[in-house]
Amino acid sequence: PELSRKLFRLIKSTNNLISHHEAAGKERVSIATQLSEWGEQTGDDGVSDISDKVGVILSEIGEVEEAYAHNLDEARGVLKAIRNTEKSVQPSRDNKDKIADEIQKLKFKEPSSTRLVVLENELVRAEAENLVAEAQLSNVTREKLKEAYETEFAAVIERAEKQIMLAKHGRRLLALLDDSPVTPGDGRPAYNQGSQARQILDDAEDDLKAWQP
Amino acid sequence: PELSRKLFRLIKSTNNLISHHEAAGKERVSIATQLSEWGEQTGDDGVSDISDKVGVILSEIGEVEEAYAHNLDEARGVLKAIRNTEKSVQPSRDNKDKIADEIQKLKFKEPSSTRLVVLENELVRAEAENLVAEAQLSNVTREKLKEAYETEFAAVIERAEKQIMLAKHGRRLLALLDDSPVTPGDGRPAYNQGSQARQILDDAEDDLKAWQP
Repeated sequence: PELSRKLFRLIKSTNNLISHHEAAGKERVSIATQLSEWGEQTGDDGVSDISDKVGVILSEIGEVEEAYAHNLDEARGVLKAIRNTEKSVQPSRDNKDKIADEIQKLKFKEPSSTRLVVLENELVRAEAENLVAEAQLSNVTREKLKEAYETEFAAVIERAEKQIMLAKHGRRLLALLDDSPVTPGDGRPAYNQGSQARQILDDAEDDLKAWQP
Repeated sequence: PELSRKLFRLIKSTNNLISHHEAAGKERVSIATQLSEWGEQTGDDGVSDISDKVGVILSEIGEVEEAYAHNLDEARGVLKAIRNTEKSVQPSRDNKDKIADEIQKLKFKEPSSTRLVVLENELVRAEAENLVAEAQLSNVTREKLKEAYETEFAAVIERAEKQIMLAKHGRRLLALLDDSPVTPGDGRPAYNQGSQARQILDDAEDDLKAWQP
């Protein structure tokens, strides 16, 4: 089988993976807006403010998801270097095998042919060329395999660490919403956690900005 | 506009979000197998073993992603309780408004009608009924809004913490692969990091099992 076929397929599947995370990120951002709009139409100040600000957090989570997709795409680009080298090594292997085959056939059909010497020399050259190609392939494969998956794991960790920060601030927002039941006819105490909620969003922004790999 | 329309749409969008993460999880697991198979066909013991074991880590990352989708679905289920209450409150609002309307019209057209007293009594009952319905809606909305997004943020944190552990073990695996370049004709030193790699997978399993919210 063609040397680069398996990696070609893997790179294609990775493209699907990236699309799924990209779509998830965009859907998240859209849901965030929907949550904010729903909260507004409840006519409940507290629900409206908290939904709106939880929406901001969800939207940031969505943007982190989209950035993750982008980083996965970088890892995918690195794998292409291996695939391209595999592709370029294939003709070198084929050439060497072809000459060796020819020699075998000629030895059987015409053992005293003078072409045998020519072919033997060609084979030596082809083997030398292939030795270089195989060493290049081995070097590129190991180097780029490590680079690709180091990039991939770094992307997983970046998304995870950022989303943990955001989710924790999201929880703080939810804690501001009083959900003790009211009895019919009794109003709720006025919502005045607005500035605390605003502060939580500022904290989330600061955390995101301060994040380092 | 119908009270529950916005939330209905949000719940539907959340279903799309869940599908994207589910698809991403499955694609990850499939890519993991492809990576392992690619590594095997390189015929390089080191690349083969590390690809196979990085594949195991990626596969676990994919399974965590699928579990995340499942947890998002639970959060989505909680939102349905709000939507259902919104749905059930709508007729109560409509009924109250309809009676009030009727009274207005009758007062204009037939101010001395005896039906006015009947309608006024009906309105008092409808208002009392609606007062209860609105209190129920307010209570359910606040309680379930908090519950839904607490579940959602917990899901974000669980996925993130587990994937960080896995990615860090993945990095340890990559570090076992020697990528110093070889010169043509020189073989690589034999790969004998197999048992260390096996140990890393065991560590990853242990970490996953020990994880707690």
